[in-house]
Amino acid sequence: MDAGVFSERGLFVCFEGGEGAGKSTQSRLLHDWLVEHGATVLLTFEPGDTPVGKELRRIVLDPATGELSDRTEALLYAADKAEHVDHVVLPALARGEVVITDRYVDSTLAYQGAGRTLDVAEVEAVARWATRDLRPHLTVVLDLEPETGLDRFTERDRIEGQSLEFHQRVRQGFLALAAADADHYLVLDAREPIEEIAAAIRARVEPLLAAAR
Amino acid sequence: MDAGVFSERGLFVCFEGGEGAGKSTQSRLLHDWLVEHGATVLLTFEPGDTPVGKELRRIVLDPATGELSDRTEALLYAADKAEHVDHVVLPALARGEVVITDRYVDSTLAYQGAGRTLDVAEVEAVARWATRDLRPHLTVVLDLEPETGLDRFTERDRIEGQSLEFHQRVRQGFLALAAADADHYLVLDAREPIEEIAAAIRARVEPLLAAAR
Repeated sequence: MDAGVFSERGLFVCFEGGEGAGKSTQSRLLHDWLVEHGATVLLTFEPGDTPVGKELRRIVLDPATGELSDRTEALLYAADKAEHVDHVVLPALARGEVVITDRYVDSTLAYQGAGRTLDVAEVEAVARWATRDLRPHLTVVLDLEPETGLDRFTERDRIEGQSLEFHQRVRQGFLALAAADADHYLVLDAREPIEEIAAAIRARVEPLLAAAR
Repeated sequence: MDAGVFSERGLFVCFEGGEGAGKSTQSRLLHDWLVEHGATVLLTFEPGDTPVGKELRRIVLDPATGELSDRTEALLYAADKAEHVDHVVLPALARGEVVITDRYVDSTLAYQGAGRTLDVAEVEAVARWATRDLRPHLTVVLDLEPETGLDRFTERDRIEGQSLEFHQRVRQGFLALAAADADHYLVLDAREPIEEIAAAIRARVEPLLAAAR
């Protein structure tokens, strides 16, 4: 796998991490701060932020779906990503906007690769093909012990309902991706106060934003 | 791409070809003949012969779905195949049965590769991963000019509704796959009488069946 493609226009920021780590809160805070400072920002998520993606999200997360082949699950996530990149992410970047996504390719590598124990290189090849190898300028990993994050949920979907060992492999998957490419990652302890985390993210995004203009 | 994996148990036969070429008729005739001769036969199809596959079939074929990214479409077909191979085809072969499927990997290579003009090698890599590289012992291609086959349909689904040029590329895609691996293909002119085609298929299957027992 090569180094990937970084959009020359716009700024592409991803939030990654396990369940309950605060990804939606922090992506919303970053969005609001950027808008206040005059940026045009698209706040989006995976899976499910396209019409077809919404149907795929239902299939992969609904406990009523029952057992799926691990490859089926990985391919459904990849299909969601292909639609998301082609019809949402790339058009916004082409307009010079900031795109913030709650989950992206790393989630597939961590959940379907490390979590399900499919071959990570094979899952990555499929996910990179789906996304035309488009890489984020920055990925923020909100790191949290799975025990802590999962306590927030009383009703769990198909993925949240996996074993603690599964979620521990997912966590280590995210940390390994960040360690291998420190220039494009920011790993933060999700137990820190919300405002401190938000400030650390802003400090890392601000120079990227200046460069993107 | 290597030579793939041939199941050591059972017999795996695929029917391929364009719209209206008689795949379902001929697969049914072969099924009935095999059952009459004492074989245990599973007659199946792609896309859509699993619970999740049924939902994916609706998404990819319903004209109301509208425009999908070409990669999304290829990945949805691949997800259907992964589920089909893991939960239908491989279990039946493991029981020593004959599996006859109406469409398999070649349809993806012809429609999403040659038809959509995605890179065929890339589409193939995804489809082979989805299917664990499982190959049919025999693929029967029912060859027909698209003009003739499409005349049978007054209401067309998302795929049937593509241009004539698209369907011509699909036809050439099937013929190219057959030409590259004659030992595992039987190409028949779909305009011949139904019973003559059925007899030619039986003549090719019979020795394979003897070998599989």
